[in-house]
Amino acid sequence: MKAVQVVGYHTKLQLNDIPVPTVESPFDVIVKIGGAGVCRTDLHILEGQWEEKTGVALPYTIGHENAGWVHAVGSAVTNVSEGDKVILHPLITCGLCRACRFGDDVHCQNSSFPGIDTNGGYAEYLRTTARSVVRIDDGLAPADVAALADAGLTAYHAIAKVARTTRPGDVCVVIGAGGLGHIGIQVLKAISGVTIVVLDRNPAAVDLAVKIGADFGIVADGTQVEQVLELTGGHGAEAVVDFVGEGGATREGVAMLRRAGNYFVVGYGENIDVPTIDIISTEINFIGNLVGSYNDLQELMVLAAQGKVTLHTTKYKLDEFQTALDDLDAGLVRGRAILVP
Amino acid sequence: MKAVQVVGYHTKLQLNDIPVPTVESPFDVIVKIGGAGVCRTDLHILEGQWEEKTGVALPYTIGHENAGWVHAVGSAVTNVSEGDKVILHPLITCGLCRACRFGDDVHCQNSSFPGIDTNGGYAEYLRTTARSVVRIDDGLAPADVAALADAGLTAYHAIAKVARTTRPGDVCVVIGAGGLGHIGIQVLKAISGVTIVVLDRNPAAVDLAVKIGADFGIVADGTQVEQVLELTGGHGAEAVVDFVGEGGATREGVAMLRRAGNYFVVGYGENIDVPTIDIISTEINFIGNLVGSYNDLQELMVLAAQGKVTLHTTKYKLDEFQTALDDLDAGLVRGRAILVP
Amino acid sequence: MKAVQVVGYHTKLQLNDIPVPTVESPFDVIVKIGGAGVCRTDLHILEGQWEEKTGVALPYTIGHENAGWVHAVGSAVTNVSEGDKVILHPLITCGLCRACRFGDDVHCQNSSFPGIDTNGGYAEYLRTTARSVVRIDDGLAPADVAALADAGLTAYHAIAKVARTTRPGDVCVVIGAGGLGHIGIQVLKAISGVTIVVLDRNPAAVDLAVKIGADFGIVADGTQVEQVLELTGGHGAEAVVDFVGEGGATREGVAMLRRAGNYFVVGYGENIDVPTIDIISTEINFIGNLVGSYNDLQELMVLAAQGKVTLHTTKYKLDEFQTALDDLDAGLVRGRAILVP
Amino acid sequence: MKAVQVVGYHTKLQLNDIPVPTVESPFDVIVKIGGAGVCRTDLHILEGQWEEKTGVALPYTIGHENAGWVHAVGSAVTNVSEGDKVILHPLITCGLCRACRFGDDVHCQNSSFPGIDTNGGYAEYLRTTARSVVRIDDGLAPADVAALADAGLTAYHAIAKVARTTRPGDVCVVIGAGGLGHIGIQVLKAISGVTIVVLDRNPAAVDLAVKIGADFGIVADGTQVEQVLELTGGHGAEAVVDFVGEGGATREGVAMLRRAGNYFVVGYGENIDVPTIDIISTEINFIGNLVGSYNDLQELMVLAAQGKVTLHTTKYKLDEFQTALDDLDAGLVRGRAILVP
Repeated sequence: MKAVQVVGYHTKLQLNDIPVPTVESPFDVIVKIGGAGVCRTDLHILEGQWEEKTGVALPYTIGHENAGWVHAVGSAVTNVSEGDKVILHPLITCGLCRACRFGDDVHCQNSSFPGIDTNGGYAEYLRTTARSVVRIDDGLAPADVAALADAGLTAYHAIAKVARTTRPGDVCVVIGAGGLGHIGIQVLKAISGVTIVVLDRNPAAVDLAVKIGADFGIVADGTQVEQVLELTGGHGAEAVVDFVGEGGATREGVAMLRRAGNYFVVGYGENIDVPTIDIISTEINFIGNLVGSYNDLQELMVLAAQGKVTLHTTKYKLDEFQTALDDLDAGLVRGRAILVP
Repeated sequence: MKAVQVVGYHTKLQLNDIPVPTVESPFDVIVKIGGAGVCRTDLHILEGQWEEKTGVALPYTIGHENAGWVHAVGSAVTNVSEGDKVILHPLITCGLCRACRFGDDVHCQNSSFPGIDTNGGYAEYLRTTARSVVRIDDGLAPADVAALADAGLTAYHAIAKVARTTRPGDVCVVIGAGGLGHIGIQVLKAISGVTIVVLDRNPAAVDLAVKIGADFGIVADGTQVEQVLELTGGHGAEAVVDFVGEGGATREGVAMLRRAGNYFVVGYGENIDVPTIDIISTEINFIGNLVGSYNDLQELMVLAAQGKVTLHTTKYKLDEFQTALDDLDAGLVRGRAILVP
Repeated sequence: MKAVQVVGYHTKLQLNDIPVPTVESPFDVIVKIGGAGVCRTDLHILEGQWEEKTGVALPYTIGHENAGWVHAVGSAVTNVSEGDKVILHPLITCGLCRACRFGDDVHCQNSSFPGIDTNGGYAEYLRTTARSVVRIDDGLAPADVAALADAGLTAYHAIAKVARTTRPGDVCVVIGAGGLGHIGIQVLKAISGVTIVVLDRNPAAVDLAVKIGADFGIVADGTQVEQVLELTGGHGAEAVVDFVGEGGATREGVAMLRRAGNYFVVGYGENIDVPTIDIISTEINFIGNLVGSYNDLQELMVLAAQGKVTLHTTKYKLDEFQTALDDLDAGLVRGRAILVP
Repeated sequence: MKAVQVVGYHTKLQLNDIPVPTVESPFDVIVKIGGAGVCRTDLHILEGQWEEKTGVALPYTIGHENAGWVHAVGSAVTNVSEGDKVILHPLITCGLCRACRFGDDVHCQNSSFPGIDTNGGYAEYLRTTARSVVRIDDGLAPADVAALADAGLTAYHAIAKVARTTRPGDVCVVIGAGGLGHIGIQVLKAISGVTIVVLDRNPAAVDLAVKIGADFGIVADGTQVEQVLELTGGHGAEAVVDFVGEGGATREGVAMLRRAGNYFVVGYGENIDVPTIDIISTEINFIGNLVGSYNDLQELMVLAAQGKVTLHTTKYKLDEFQTALDDLDAGLVRGRAILVP
């Protein structure tokens, strides 16, 4: 089959012909790929940023946002059958460690990560396990939802925490209305009664945010802290979700937080650097957020099936992978780029 | 001022002329009534059902769903000022007991209940305290929201618990799309990502439920349990909210519940009568629900101001109180009847 | 190997010689039994109470409270190794359904139950899977903890919910200081700051309860409701854990409950039969409780290793099984009877 | 009456004769002081550290950890009577704002703080309100518990959060076994089933910690991070409570945290300065902690009455205030210094 592979760092991906993966153990599931999201992380992999961290042997197939159809299943698989339409949780997890047993499978002590440290989805087929496949609604196309597998799932996971820690009528500031923010706003609207205030430097992104559900949109022109304080009667917001995490976002974000408020860290780059005296005197919290769990992904797929969360995508044929990556790097992709075999 | 009073049981209410209430202690607030909901409980009071329970001295003014404008405030009142538009929490609470201190003010150990055990709102003015007045948005009219003070607040309180104990994509069955159910469905839609299934014997009520946000409407014609099970893949619903509580609703409702599900008791009449073996083997819970707290009412007023919860009302002049009660008794009121001084 | 088997209902168990079970699939674990609890349920099985429910093919080996040493593991097992000392979670669960994925493995949609619907632990060896074996501390002997696998785990699970839903200084009434109650009191003492009030008809059981941690012991002589109300200033207890569930326990238990309190149903026999008006006007909840999860069992084993939960046991050799059952039936066993191969 | 007052900054306190405070509004409570804790904050006040922050008019009476007997009550006070033995919550709160209504009274929007911005307890009498007085058990002496009013309440509040966010058997590292840590360890032991690991630079403090309930004591000699990791199988602790917050404690504390763990900030001085990439990739949280609520203080007083939390104190007569402050400054006080009128 065709597979786009990393053959070295600081060099281009290569389209190789490799064997179709087969069932090797009883929980294995072989998925025929219907769509694979092209993500900025893929560019970082080629730059060698993950080389030391994963130590993955080259060549290997990249692509960590995958959806498709079940092609073959191992003897112990009971949750999906051949032909089922599925989206793939980004991690392959053990199901035996305490974290897995609590549903916090992203903290699995024995996980692997297709597209990062083992073969991923820029290919015609991919091997994963029964623990990673979520069936999706008949009305959804794999290529349309593939990018929800990782970027969308991260946004969902953070926003679901916001929903659980706020009350209807509370104010939630969303910093950043880009890829994750866009999904986060839709999820927040769908599952929570908070008042949504969205900040972005890009006026077009702010406009879109309001169109998809934000109650207030603020162009981040330097007055955003004051605007949020004014909107909240001087008190600040009960929740701030930071999808940016760099360029001073965290310092400003903390200034928008109400006493006893929660700051959700999603985007990354800079440090959280706050005096402990400020943390205790206002009793604020900082909440870390990784990608969501398998059950989170099931829930997100229900919202997608109900039309509450949609994603704009630009499709490329699998062998147009280089164009897709180049477009992404040049900022030319509208929504998410998806490779379709 | 004019006030409609209970002068005896098993006899009609009477329009009396009594003094306007005045500030007697520093936290007192005098409210000029803008609207008072006419509730089935008012009929029950006249039938003597509350006589022994409250021991209230006659005559007294009834009406326990009240909204209006602040007319005068005591010296210690800091949260409202003369002229503020307000809705009244149904209870006057002490603020000192442990329940009040936890925000569970409906379990206050020293509360009084205007319209039930002290003078209520079928009048031009009413005395309450700073702890019971919630300011409402400029865009809301007291007569339009008065009925949210008790009926609406009860529905809100139960639904807010549903939202906190379910996950997006879970199924919530709402039994009864009458007054409370109508509000409950709107709230559920506004604050939660559950899939809403509404049951009612009345096809028109079911149609309306679907129009205001239910994902599925089922006419309770005897097949409702099977229909719910079919909709849920045979597993039942994660939550059932029972706004009926009589006529066999609880037995059927329990049969619709998924393992580890929560049954929210709101309507009343019959007994919850379930074998303990069934409770433990499926590990289900029964959750009692009283009227909501002051903070619940604040939250509901945010949703009302945002247009997410609306209520159809039929207004009557205060001195038309008898017509309003007669219409209610005869089932002729569309939505809620409201007395307007 | 030797195995004590059900060969028919309304007849005695029989000691048979059957093959040692072997690894059949990659997650299988063969356990050399170190101790198997003898439980009242075993008597009920012989009386045919479970015949229709399980439809298990006879003969089969009973015994559902098991602990021992890992004898052999399948190729995919990563959490235990040959020779590890383990206690067995009573269920074998799939790890793939949504309940398993949330850590609520007792609500697994594809579980089996050794000793009930497949071969259990009245034997020298038993086959289970990696998902059911919990490693125990070096300081613990399998035969000493085996009875914690089911009876103890049920008590732990309910008490852990009590701990999560109460505040230090709240009052928890424990109804029944028998087998489960005995463990429940120790757990409650170890993990919570509630004030513990224990009720039992048996004065000796009450004395023991106080010795192992109850703050107050009350002999249930007909005045117990009044005594609890007096102890709680007339308000009742924030939590009642009912390990009895028959003989009028539930009616009395509800009368001991404070407004907004939680009633934990563990023992069973009679119905919960309470007017909905009482449930809503006091806003009480009824919480069902099944056996605990795998992670619950891990936690209980930590408490056991720390000496915070101990169990009195009477050991019998495996081929003395009939004596053990007869003693249990006659009420002659002090603590729990354990079969030791 | 005698009162020790701030008469200027960078100068000594002065014993003045001022009028006994009287009831001025209906919720006022006059307390005859039985004991007032001498706190390092009192030294900071004299150094002018709070001058700008509070703008309190001089002279005023300091002392913010107070307990005694109710001397007089206003007309609306229902929760205490003359002669009741009470401890004082450090804040006087409004009871009307949303935070007060949720039980988060320390976030009251209209609070005052006796001893900091209004007259405190280095005196024979103090005026507070009904909302701040917690009755204490007959067996407790005001002078023995006064220091629990602020220092103890802060420790309690943080530890109660630990108890609510951990499971029995989880590991909680306590950094700092000084004043707050000492109380925190006792509370943790009393209300939770976590395994307690205490770190301190002072071997005597570590010994004492183990004596009062710590499962493991570690002298912080530079190897503490490794020791914690070793104790936790390399994974780190589910919770770290940092009572130090300076001198590098936070950096080390974070290194001891398990994936998805919670870091409780109580002590202060340095910054929390952590890369966002580390926060998200391990999904850790930072939880701010201020002094506890009124209800927290009630709970702590139950534990004190049960003998589960005790405090070593050194008493001084009120007019020996200068000696008490000098001793505190010189590190000569064993336990807490208490002024007794």
